[in-house]
Amino acid sequence: MGDPPDRSFSDAEEEILRATYSALREHGYADLTIKRIAEEYGKSTAAVHYHYDTKEELLAAFLDYILQRFVDTIHEVETTDPNERLTLLLDQLLVELEDHLDLLVAILEMRSQAPYEAAFAERFEQNDEYVRYMLRTVIADGIRQGVFDDDIDPEHAAGALMTIVDGARTRTVVLDDADALATARRTAEEYVDTVLRVDD
Amino acid sequence: MGDPPDRSFSDAEEEILRATYSALREHGYADLTIKRIAEEYGKSTAAVHYHYDTKEELLAAFLDYILQRFVDTIHEVETTDPNERLTLLLDQLLVELEDHLDLLVAILEMRSQAPYEAAFAERFEQNDEYVRYMLRTVIADGIRQGVFDDDIDPEHAAGALMTIVDGARTRTVVLDDADALATARRTAEEYVDTVLRVDD
Repeated sequence: MGDPPDRSFSDAEEEILRATYSALREHGYADLTIKRIAEEYGKSTAAVHYHYDTKEELLAAFLDYILQRFVDTIHEVETTDPNERLTLLLDQLLVELEDHLDLLVAILEMRSQAPYEAAFAERFEQNDEYVRYMLRTVIADGIRQGVFDDDIDPEHAAGALMTIVDGARTRTVVLDDADALATARRTAEEYVDTVLRVDD
Repeated sequence: MGDPPDRSFSDAEEEILRATYSALREHGYADLTIKRIAEEYGKSTAAVHYHYDTKEELLAAFLDYILQRFVDTIHEVETTDPNERLTLLLDQLLVELEDHLDLLVAILEMRSQAPYEAAFAERFEQNDEYVRYMLRTVIADGIRQGVFDDDIDPEHAAGALMTIVDGARTRTVVLDDADALATARRTAEEYVDTVLRVDD
């Protein structure tokens, strides 16, 4: 446990996945077709099908691609101080999303299909598992260092923070509320400050 | 502000909306058709169309129907003690959902379509506005009575609790995790106990 699946993509695949992103932003998930992706790619649908047999296969690869990029940004958090590290992780999970609101729309559509698309469900579960592992680890480390309360269950606290993160992602899209991320960031900070952190 | 839109339904409409619920549970949102709803209703598609011109109109009425039932359960919370009232409201928002997991799947699909379907967006926004109003009111009342900290912004605290609620709803569906509601209930309780409540 701990290492997320590392998938690499050829240059052509990366180009197709970037075209998928553009097509998703423009048409949304429900109206996404290989034809529209091919148009963004600037090549034929056959050129897309050469790499991905079906739309589902392509979208599963797309999820691998964006979740991998997300994991990469998490890896950029290099500090080992528990307080600072947890703050930066929560920033990555919430603040950074402000630049990708249209991606959140497409992701929520794919999330809502998880009960019907095993390939989607698997990827969302894997990603959640990995992010909770990162959070749990820094919380457990903070407990050992005496900065977080030793009554805390790191597993629960990681789930609590991810509940806040997922709530913000959903509310941003459904309520078309760009402030939802800021509300969640403040809520996560209150949770860390009052539930996790030992009083100074 | 305060009172949600009150919609009443004829007996035939209620029967169709209950049939819609069954059809949604069985087929999911993406594969829902008037034909399938008519099959559950036990009448012709014409009989459905007599009440609802389009599938979108029927689904908007379905949202009114379930959100109205949800508001009714909130109205059942009669206690005026702020601590107790907030606990019961959070139970309604989280614990009660455990009996309606398949409804959560259909609701998340409709939520994900809010950016494309104005009729859905409007209803989700109205419902959220109303629930936040109920939460904000009990929190403000608790501040006046001295049981909640007077540094709290009731508007933010209500948004924080709804972020936790929406996170739980999404995680229950996407991660197929029935424990997500219990994790969120505990998180909301920690938030109330440590952020809102004044120390005894």
